Amino acid sequence: MEPRISILTLRVDDLEAATRYYVDELGWQPLLAVPGEVTFLPVGHGVVLGLFDARGFDADAGRPLAAPLTLAHNVGSEAEVDAVTDEMVAAGGTLVRAPARASWGGYHGFVEDPAGYCWEIAHNPAWRVAPDGTVAIGPVEA
Amino acid sequence: MEPRISILTLRVDDLEAATRYYVDELGWQPLLAVPGEVTFLPVGHGVVLGLFDARGFDADAGRPLAAPLTLAHNVGSEAEVDAVTDEMVAAGGTLVRAPARASWGGYHGFVEDPAGYCWEIAHNPAWRVAPDGTVAIGPVEA
Repeated sequence: MEPRISILTLRVDDLEAATRYYVDELGWQPLLAVPGEVTFLPVGHGVVLGLFDARGFDADAGRPLAAPLTLAHNVGSEAEVDAVTDEMVAAGGTLVRAPARASWGGYHGFVEDPAGYCWEIAHNPAWRVAPDGTVAIGPVEA
Repeated sequence: MEPRISILTLRVDDLEAATRYYVDELGWQPLLAVPGEVTFLPVGHGVVLGLFDARGFDADAGRPLAAPLTLAHNVGSEAEVDAVTDEMVAAGGTLVRAPARASWGGYHGFVEDPAGYCWEIAHNPAWRVAPDGTVAIGPVEA
């Protein structure tokens, strides 16, 4: 497994207030914002900070998590999701949710590390990182 | 304030077990590991995952934090630490710890966002990010 965080997702009770803080007050440009659901903020080369509404966050991993965050590790195919998930479990991680289709069109599994932090291993066909580190989510342009 | 995460620090109860998982089992190369204190793992272009022993983590911000993580935003000078800390507070963040000297030789302040997540605004004179994104901590080589 390559050492790489694609998205740091934080569980937030008031998504509107959190989004207002980062976008309206600090002036950060969202990559994607779905009111009531999620706000994605680019925070580095190929790295995104996700603010995830608490209800959606709790539903996503299929069970309550010990910590209010997930670390997403995006890979290039569903087979890689399976392989990395297996690798993390074989290394001593705890399977939280076996890889399966996601509502957003991809495929993902969840594994907790020994300290209780949860990784989301994901394949998102719409996730692209340009050579300069700019992240895009959306259909590939013609 | 530039949208950038330099270090994602996680509070861990058993640093040795967490380090063993990432370094010995998954094979990640630590940037720096101080047994009983902290393990820093590069996880992207200019981005580091910090595993911080719970006692040290709790002492660092000066008071217990709502969430078991901090988001470090490294800047180039002490004046920038002051400026960014002020900006985050003016935007609606809560000052957790006013900027001050750090035990590791730098200067840092702590501000919580409206969702309760704590940023550490830091100047670490030993922190360097190469053009290819490789992070180094230590004295500049001759």
